[in-house]
Order: sequence, then C-alpha cells, then structure tokens
Amino acid sequence: MSVVAISGGVGGAKLALGLDRTLSAGELSVVVNTGDDFDHFGLKVCPDLDTVLYTLAGMADPIQGWGRRDETWTMMQTFAALGEETWFKLGDADTALHVARTHRLNQGATLSDVMEHFRTQFGVASRILPMTDDRVETRIETDEGDLAFQDYFVRRRCAPRALSIRFVDAATALPASGALAALSSPALEAIVLCPSNPYLSIDPLLAIVRLRESLENRAAPLIAVSPLIGGRAVKGPTAKIMQELGIPMTPTSVYEHYQGLIDALVVDSADADAANHIPVPVFSTATLMSSLEDRLRLARFVLDCARSLPRR
Amino acid sequence: MSVVAISGGVGGAKLALGLDRTLSAGELSVVVNTGDDFDHFGLKVCPDLDTVLYTLAGMADPIQGWGRRDETWTMMQTFAALGEETWFKLGDADTALHVARTHRLNQGATLSDVMEHFRTQFGVASRILPMTDDRVETRIETDEGDLAFQDYFVRRRCAPRALSIRFVDAATALPASGALAALSSPALEAIVLCPSNPYLSIDPLLAIVRLRESLENRAAPLIAVSPLIGGRAVKGPTAKIMQELGIPMTPTSVYEHYQGLIDALVVDSADADAANHIPVPVFSTATLMSSLEDRLRLARFVLDCARSLPRR
Repeated sequence: MSVVAISGGVGGAKLALGLDRTLSAGELSVVVNTGDDFDHFGLKVCPDLDTVLYTLAGMADPIQGWGRRDETWTMMQTFAALGEETWFKLGDADTALHVARTHRLNQGATLSDVMEHFRTQFGVASRILPMTDDRVETRIETDEGDLAFQDYFVRRRCAPRALSIRFVDAATALPASGALAALSSPALEAIVLCPSNPYLSIDPLLAIVRLRESLENRAAPLIAVSPLIGGRAVKGPTAKIMQELGIPMTPTSVYEHYQGLIDALVVDSADADAANHIPVPVFSTATLMSSLEDRLRLARFVLDCARSLPRR
Repeated sequence: MSVVAISGGVGGAKLALGLDRTLSAGELSVVVNTGDDFDHFGLKVCPDLDTVLYTLAGMADPIQGWGRRDETWTMMQTFAALGEETWFKLGDADTALHVARTHRLNQGATLSDVMEHFRTQFGVASRILPMTDDRVETRIETDEGDLAFQDYFVRRRCAPRALSIRFVDAATALPASGALAALSSPALEAIVLCPSNPYLSIDPLLAIVRLRESLENRAAPLIAVSPLIGGRAVKGPTAKIMQELGIPMTPTSVYEHYQGLIDALVVDSADADAANHIPVPVFSTATLMSSLEDRLRLARFVLDCARSLPRR
C-alpha cells in the first residue's frame, strides 16, 4: 500500500512512526513542513524534518519528542562560556547533522538530497521529503511584532499573542520534486494529513501553490487526523493559536480549515458528538498517542479508514 | 615587562603558558601561526590559535596538548553514522568554538576580533593574536603530491616524504593589525620565538613580508628557543621534515634558519657543545617542558636571557 503522510514535527511524527512500522518497507513517504527551518549560527536547522528523521530512526528523545535520545550538551555549555546565544538548544549529535547538512547544501546538494542521504544512513525505510527545496519562512504577526517562527516558538515560548501567520515566499516556492512525485504517483493509495498543527505546520505546505494543486488533483483519498482531543490540543501552541485567532476548538474548525481538500476526518472519540454535522465521513477512535502501541493502533485505524474510501 | 611570543601549536603553547604565568597580566602578547587553518565541513578551524587559547585558559587536553580536556565526542560519532569524514577529530566543545567563530567571521568580524572575544570570554589575560586576518595556506609538496597541511599532518600522519613547504598567499597577506602593533610597540622589551617547528609553524609568519620587516626593524631583542633536544625533536614532524629537507638536526641549523633575525638562541644543555660556533649569544638550559614547573622555569630563563641582551 503506497501512502503519503503529510507532517509537521512532534505530533505528526508520532503517527508517521505508526505508519512506518505498520506499512511494508518503502511504502510510506512523509512530506514534511520546512517553514520552521532557520539558520542558527550559520547552520541550517530543520526542526520538523529532523524530528521525523529521528522518530522513524528510533533515535528521538522519548520525553521531549524532538532532539535525540542519549544526547550530550557539551557544545551548548561552550556556547554559554563564550557568551553566545543559548535559547535554542543544540545537542551535540543534533548539531553534527546540522553541520553535515549545511556543508552539503553549500556544496550544491538540495535539501531533498541531504535528507535522502541522512535517512538512508540512519536505516529509515520510509522516504522523508521536504515540502520544498526553496526557502519558505513561517512568520507570526504578534502583539509584540512580527516574529520568525523559532523566535516565537522557542525564544518567546509562544508568549506573544498571535494575530496572523504568514509563509514568506510560499507563493513562489516550488514543491520539491520528491514530494510532488510521491503525491502524483499512480500507485498512491492514501494521503494522510497527520495531527499536526493545521495553522503552523500544515498550512505552510498548503501555501505552496503547486503542492496544494497536486493535493486537489489527487486520485487517492485524503484523510486528515484532527489534532484535537475533547476540544483541547494535546500539546504545543495549537490551543493558544486557535483561541487567539478566534477559532473554536472543535473538529468542525479542523474540517472547515481543510474544506475542499479532505475526503474524511478522523477525530478523537471525545469529539465524535461535536463532529456530527461535518459533511464528509468522520471516523472516531482514541487518538492520543502516548505509547508505540497507540501509534501503531491509530496508524492501522487510519489506513483502514482510508481503504474504505473510494478513489476519486 | 612587555613581551611578544611567536608561536605555532603544542610546543610553542607550552612556553607561551610559562610566559603567561610568569609575566603580569596583560604583559604578554602571543602572535600565532594561522597557516594550518582550514575549512572543515564549512567550519573555520584554527588549530594553533585554539591550542594557544585552550592552553592559556587551562582548558587544553593535558595528554595530547591540543583540543580540550574533558571533551566529548558525540558529534564525531554522529558523523561516523552519517558516513561523513572522520579523519579530523572534532570534539563537541571544540566544535562549538569553530561554529561560533565561523558565524562571527561570516557576519564580518575579523579573525583577530573573534580571538580577542574568545580569550576575553575564557578569562585569558594575554592577548592571542593571529599573524594575519588574511588567508595564508601552508602546503607541503611531497612525493605523493601537493598536500594541504592538515591532509599531510593529520590525514596522512606525515607519512609522505616532504620535498618542500610553501605558504600560499603569504606574499600578499597583510599582518593583522594587532600583531603588527604588538611588535612595533615602543614598550616592547623582548620578542620570544617559541620552540615551534621552524619550517612548518614559524616560517608562515616570516613569509608575511611586513611581519618579517617589523621583526627585522625591532628595537627589542629577539631570542629564539631551539625545538631540538640532543639532536632530536621533542615531538611532531620536525625531525622527519628536517631529515627529508636535508637539514642536520643541530642548533646551528636552527640558528642558520633564523640568521639575521635573532639576537640570541636558547638551546638545550644537551646541544650546548654543538652550539659552540654560533655567532650570537647562546644560552643553554634544560628545555624539555613536561610539567607546568618546566614551563615556568624555561619562561623565567628565557626572560632573564632577554633582559641581559641590549636593545638595538
């Protein structure tokens, strides 16, 4: 079964892991948000791509969800001693990846090339595909000014009030050829929108015109998994952002956000009643993914739902 | 007493440490070879500058002499897992310095600016001055081809036979203003050529025309410390290089190499007899620096010798 998952960072990566472990080797491609990517100390840092990479490689920190397990922090200690900025935590193993990536990019490789090399080296069977090899930058207009994503998310810990979100250069960015090929493959049987933050992590992909078009022109069914559980967000700034943007914390909001794009929605059982009037098939199950077993179970559930949907 | 030491890496840094701890805070400036500097993974690595920095900061690895004590190697392990080159050992703390330096250089700082910032952050009282802020590259012509210094020294462990040594762009490089100012200061009372490799570590400085001129036009006495002990080199490729270049392992060779530039030579007691015919004052003492006490003792000895020499 050939499947594309569309993912942001931690939340999406959990379902991507379930899909990776459920499908046969090579059946899954994960198209990943790069709007959060940024240059830090001249190093190209790609938080969502790396979270997906570490998660699928079994290397992710099991507590935080991002970064690496058994990480060391010698470099950060030295940064502190040198009086350098330390608000963005760069683990030593993680930094090796950023250094190698930056070097390869500077030598002319695309981000897609680099991630393909990394996932192969780390023994990941699924493809990990940047949404674009161009630069797209998620920025948050807040009551404290216009902030780059990491400034907002990490340095300011989402404290400023969000007024709007934009994706600089998304309109002119081209989808990475790998992402486009995966979405246009005649063999594709399902597209899964992971339970990532729709506004911060999925919208950057949808803002890339040709990527959105290829989703709209899909032959395979597209099924989204709501990031809400009982009218709350599991983690991250989803709840705060939705509140500040005046969006109700309901599955209907998620549906309306993806309206015209999705063929079905998976919601948590706690939200099943609130999803009554959504005019596409709604499947409900427990969507909280605490354990690996949760991830596998939800992945199987989502794939079963997708199989029940007609091709378009 | 205002003193300039001229140094390469490990051997020179030992005497520089002795001088730093013997003189009052701020009296010492160390002008350091940058011919071994290179870009590795896009990071600017300055082996001699960093060895001097770590040594004076008390952070140097006490066994190797280069790199940091209590270093971790997580990054190298990840490089290995990623299939990246691992022949040049980048410790995690060491890499933090390279990352911060590269970033500052890319933002427009000079290498001198960066090293001044680093040594201040690390609480080093002596100034650590790159010989130049321009790029000068030491290359070794060998029987296996023309090799960049680190290729020859680290990757090939000095195995190829050296035919000649050259310093690319030294003729057009300008001395760093700090190095020039330290050497031209009217307050300067002595210049010490540390027992670094004359051919690999000191010659790059002498190849910079205006740096050599400022040494030739000095008012303060210049005293060199021979790197030989009993007709042998303490460590590194000095002996092999001298042999391959057909230079006898005698203090006379060291004198002749620095002829016209030095006012006196310090040799090891074991070489005193062999230094009989050298036509500048020769001072002999034990020059092996195994312990901190050795470094302090040799530093005091060299300073006493320098004090006994007339100004020019």
